[in-house]
Amino acid sequence: MSTSSNPTPSPDTAREGYDRDRQVRVAVLGVGMMGQDHARRLATLTVGAELVAVSDVDVARTDAVAAEFGVRAIHDPKAAIADPEVDALVIATPGFTHEELVLLALEAGKPVLCEKPLTTSPETSRRIVEKEAELGRPLVQVGFMRRFDTGYQQLRSLIESGEYGAPLFLHCAHRNATTPPNFSSEQLMLDSVVHEVDSVRFLTGEEIVAVRVIAPRSTTAAPEGLLDPQFVIMETESGVLVDVEIFVNTTFGYEVRTELVAEKGQARIGLHEGIVTQSAAGWGGSITKDFKERFGAAYDLEFQRWIDAVRAGTNVDGPGVWDGYAAAAVCAAGVESLKTGQRVEVDLGARP
Amino acid sequence: MSTSSNPTPSPDTAREGYDRDRQVRVAVLGVGMMGQDHARRLATLTVGAELVAVSDVDVARTDAVAAEFGVRAIHDPKAAIADPEVDALVIATPGFTHEELVLLALEAGKPVLCEKPLTTSPETSRRIVEKEAELGRPLVQVGFMRRFDTGYQQLRSLIESGEYGAPLFLHCAHRNATTPPNFSSEQLMLDSVVHEVDSVRFLTGEEIVAVRVIAPRSTTAAPEGLLDPQFVIMETESGVLVDVEIFVNTTFGYEVRTELVAEKGQARIGLHEGIVTQSAAGWGGSITKDFKERFGAAYDLEFQRWIDAVRAGTNVDGPGVWDGYAAAAVCAAGVESLKTGQRVEVDLGARP
Amino acid sequence: MSTSSNPTPSPDTAREGYDRDRQVRVAVLGVGMMGQDHARRLATLTVGAELVAVSDVDVARTDAVAAEFGVRAIHDPKAAIADPEVDALVIATPGFTHEELVLLALEAGKPVLCEKPLTTSPETSRRIVEKEAELGRPLVQVGFMRRFDTGYQQLRSLIESGEYGAPLFLHCAHRNATTPPNFSSEQLMLDSVVHEVDSVRFLTGEEIVAVRVIAPRSTTAAPEGLLDPQFVIMETESGVLVDVEIFVNTTFGYEVRTELVAEKGQARIGLHEGIVTQSAAGWGGSITKDFKERFGAAYDLEFQRWIDAVRAGTNVDGPGVWDGYAAAAVCAAGVESLKTGQRVEVDLGARP
Amino acid sequence: MSTSSNPTPSPDTAREGYDRDRQVRVAVLGVGMMGQDHARRLATLTVGAELVAVSDVDVARTDAVAAEFGVRAIHDPKAAIADPEVDALVIATPGFTHEELVLLALEAGKPVLCEKPLTTSPETSRRIVEKEAELGRPLVQVGFMRRFDTGYQQLRSLIESGEYGAPLFLHCAHRNATTPPNFSSEQLMLDSVVHEVDSVRFLTGEEIVAVRVIAPRSTTAAPEGLLDPQFVIMETESGVLVDVEIFVNTTFGYEVRTELVAEKGQARIGLHEGIVTQSAAGWGGSITKDFKERFGAAYDLEFQRWIDAVRAGTNVDGPGVWDGYAAAAVCAAGVESLKTGQRVEVDLGARP
Repeated sequence: MSTSSNPTPSPDTAREGYDRDRQVRVAVLGVGMMGQDHARRLATLTVGAELVAVSDVDVARTDAVAAEFGVRAIHDPKAAIADPEVDALVIATPGFTHEELVLLALEAGKPVLCEKPLTTSPETSRRIVEKEAELGRPLVQVGFMRRFDTGYQQLRSLIESGEYGAPLFLHCAHRNATTPPNFSSEQLMLDSVVHEVDSVRFLTGEEIVAVRVIAPRSTTAAPEGLLDPQFVIMETESGVLVDVEIFVNTTFGYEVRTELVAEKGQARIGLHEGIVTQSAAGWGGSITKDFKERFGAAYDLEFQRWIDAVRAGTNVDGPGVWDGYAAAAVCAAGVESLKTGQRVEVDLGARP
Repeated sequence: MSTSSNPTPSPDTAREGYDRDRQVRVAVLGVGMMGQDHARRLATLTVGAELVAVSDVDVARTDAVAAEFGVRAIHDPKAAIADPEVDALVIATPGFTHEELVLLALEAGKPVLCEKPLTTSPETSRRIVEKEAELGRPLVQVGFMRRFDTGYQQLRSLIESGEYGAPLFLHCAHRNATTPPNFSSEQLMLDSVVHEVDSVRFLTGEEIVAVRVIAPRSTTAAPEGLLDPQFVIMETESGVLVDVEIFVNTTFGYEVRTELVAEKGQARIGLHEGIVTQSAAGWGGSITKDFKERFGAAYDLEFQRWIDAVRAGTNVDGPGVWDGYAAAAVCAAGVESLKTGQRVEVDLGARP
Repeated sequence: MSTSSNPTPSPDTAREGYDRDRQVRVAVLGVGMMGQDHARRLATLTVGAELVAVSDVDVARTDAVAAEFGVRAIHDPKAAIADPEVDALVIATPGFTHEELVLLALEAGKPVLCEKPLTTSPETSRRIVEKEAELGRPLVQVGFMRRFDTGYQQLRSLIESGEYGAPLFLHCAHRNATTPPNFSSEQLMLDSVVHEVDSVRFLTGEEIVAVRVIAPRSTTAAPEGLLDPQFVIMETESGVLVDVEIFVNTTFGYEVRTELVAEKGQARIGLHEGIVTQSAAGWGGSITKDFKERFGAAYDLEFQRWIDAVRAGTNVDGPGVWDGYAAAAVCAAGVESLKTGQRVEVDLGARP
Repeated sequence: MSTSSNPTPSPDTAREGYDRDRQVRVAVLGVGMMGQDHARRLATLTVGAELVAVSDVDVARTDAVAAEFGVRAIHDPKAAIADPEVDALVIATPGFTHEELVLLALEAGKPVLCEKPLTTSPETSRRIVEKEAELGRPLVQVGFMRRFDTGYQQLRSLIESGEYGAPLFLHCAHRNATTPPNFSSEQLMLDSVVHEVDSVRFLTGEEIVAVRVIAPRSTTAAPEGLLDPQFVIMETESGVLVDVEIFVNTTFGYEVRTELVAEKGQARIGLHEGIVTQSAAGWGGSITKDFKERFGAAYDLEFQRWIDAVRAGTNVDGPGVWDGYAAAAVCAAGVESLKTGQRVEVDLGARP
């Protein structure tokens, strides 16, 4: 499996040829909410992984998390990358630190699972693409976990099968209950829409060539200054039109939904599932609370598949640096469109 | 169209040959909740019908309803039947009065739409069957309105098509929010399950040959002395097994649901429909409040089809006296089973 | 009830005060598929209406339809408008004839139910608005039947209730199996999107102030030269963003779906309903075949409510000429946007 | 966590206190379809487990499976139990061998995860209950995997919460595409209904006190001599009525569905989930193919939780021998009822 932008995870074959006896010693860099979740995942769920260290600029937090899992606290992430007892790295630090840390890991020749975004700009992401290309082998997987979600995999298979003809539209909705303090209109693109960008590339197997962003009236629940919701329209190489409702202060629940409209059929994923009740309140069910509930199984599979790939020596089983770069480029175009109100074209340049 | 127990209403052909200029002058006997609803239906919705009189033993109510619709109040139902200005009758009086009133209408040669039950015992219903047979032409339609519901018609068509092979099970649920005061365990069978009995006969085209009733623990919401819910198991001629959950003090909503299990396929009707919302309360919809909401369109069609049949001279377009009699016989067996705890067989005798 | 752009049909009160004994004698102008359907509706379903004549430039068709319903054939639509035996008119002729016929009816002082579009341009529609204003009383109802659909009424009530806060998005899809020969890219807007335009105005109670149309890749099933699908983005006065997927050569089924996203909740209408089956083919149901199946009940109610209004002397119970004009103006802007690729603003001018 | 018949698996707390460094060396006895699946699960998915041996009376099969996983082949299951290099056992041999093998494991003091049924008769199961009681600590978990399914856990939580009042009904359906050759009417009870028996006990926290089985007409797809479908009615201690449609030759798909009807609310699990498509074939989705697809995640969790319990020294985290015994007793009563047509009471005797 290569760093191709569109690998289809294939659960039954990925573990061929790996060294069964080797446990991959992993350090998690950044142990905020996301990093702690990944530490727990590696410590208890991922077969073949051994959580050996955690690292965070917040010393107290590092020590607390290290103690919780009975592993080493390494206060300097660069030291963790260099540590000879560490085989592989999960990077869950803030986005602006990614470039430096990923480049260091590349230099150290250690496999990395880097949370999205790969970096915060197309230029820095491009630098990583080129660095990895120089090394001649993949080392970096980007944390677009949706590619490991059953629904997205089924939808991709349906498109690939050609049964419904060419795709014409993807209608997407991405809704979140609330945003953290100081969340900006740009972050909506960089942190939230980035998932839709990668999903579209994964589903269609095509690059996105243009973006425009429309901001309708904002919800009164949005913090001062945040344009929420936004409406993002993207075009792929073949002319598939993608629309994304991004709305992150719905005040309740987390919902990610995609509808394919193709020439001869349609399909939807992300529908409500689970127990259905009825009572004086009516009939219905609950909405997933957050991304951990919605995509927990996808994260689990992502980590397992990554560790399997590291053990097998391929290092990557899922989206790689090119995917991270392409997403960064599209998101940068989106931020520009939000400012200018114009359709912005995306030019990725040649792939090294 | 005959009094056959299983006519399939065929909306587009029923009105052939009727006298377009004739308005059928109808009197409604019994103007409680049900009768008032039918009076309104005839006055405002049924093409070809003219509401001319209402009649009820409650004089004040009769006068009030008559005034509301601008029609005559006839205090004696028998007088209404005999009235030369009345062409046809809707009987919505209490069940125990049906035998006498229907027989009078038969003697007067006037078409009747009789609310269920036809009568309160198989013996009395049988008498009406025989009386109508003597007259040599159908005059009485029984108010099993579900036969005019789109869902039941689709399910019946599916069974008739043979596409799914022989039916094996019908799983039915019949749920009501509350019961009126003094509702008895027997009435559950006679007033509520009677609809399931007719539905099963309509859907399968078969007679029911045995019944057994099991009473599980009663809900604390049930009035003292009422066994609610009950579980009714019926067998048809060919061995289809029917189970009915009848539960009439659910404290909320009205729900009638049927699931067919056949050799090669299954089907369900009565599912939740309409607008679906999501909010902090979760996702979902509302449950139909009562039978008027659930079966309003079926009642409307039932009345239109009946008036069309009267204008066409066939008098009946839907379930007839045999259907009313068969339902009474099965319900009587159910009441017996509830008392004895045993499986009770049903013998309808020969059809005249 | 006025010609206000957003009357909420109120089924239980509309018939107060009308003359029960008066039958409204109606002529149907234009008896193509749509007009024949309306003729049948008036002849058999609408209480208080009497179909007395049909008229069409196609003489043979006029005669055949007249014979079928046993009514007069009037070959010249203008003669039908002038005929003293005709009280009211249904106009179902091609759109380009509407202006002349509606103006004649206004001059004759006869109530009209005019199929959409009111006319084919904002200018001609505006002329009708002004003409009716001069007359000082409403005479013309426009055939936006969706306003009589239960789902749209529920969604409008939900928005009006304010329970979910301000509306932010309406996501709409309008899909049709195939188009008639020679259907043009402009007609997609004028004949299909026009319904969405009126629905948005009905649901939000706001005017649409800007439109832009994006044409993604066309389906290979579309006839040569037809841009299908299209993606229409509209903005309302308060900043609600509306997106419409219009796709009329899906090769199967008819689907009209609307999703509201508001500040504190969401809602969807037009979901799949009816019997659900499961078999070797999977589980699921059928898709409504065409608009007659999907909106048949809405048409029936529209006609009944219109006849009730005519009998009551208010002449209109639903969308009026202003609604027809506003829709024409938005659609004209849409056609311009399709040509230029630009966002086009809509200016309705003052309401007379 | 005890061998209580109704433990609620609590994912986040179960691993407290176990020895992280200890890998549990497991042998799988019986490597038919089920055992092979478990071997794969232990080898690749279960953290803390090490598959060390497989054993089956079929020597060739044992060798092949052992080779596939790179583990020892032990041809005599008793030798595997006795083997000092084996810490724990998964028993997936045919049911009739379970008694002997489980008793040997108890004698050896080794934890066992025994596939259902615990044994094939209440008497033999009772012997195991008593044997384990003598030992004074739990060693045997029974493979009722549904207790680890999210839906069943949610439904049980809902009942326990008391929010909907007392349960009144459980309506269950258990459908399978086909049966293996020579599948008997009794096996329908012992191999299939046994899951419903345990589910009911898990959901309600009550013992089942009576059973009756009704055999409707059999499907023509059932092999000669097999009564399929059957209808099983069970009563719990408090009077909850349970009905089970068991139908194992539907010719397509696998479906397990449970509907709770309680005093103030209802709930359903096992509904259709996943991608929903629409095309010329209609709208809908696929039906799970078999129990592995439907309950794969439940098996995975069952194994993980069992290994966690073994590492923690509690040995059991889920249904134990009493649950296996109770299920055997109810199933035996069901087999008797199928023969006699009568309601059969179940007496479990005192729990040691």
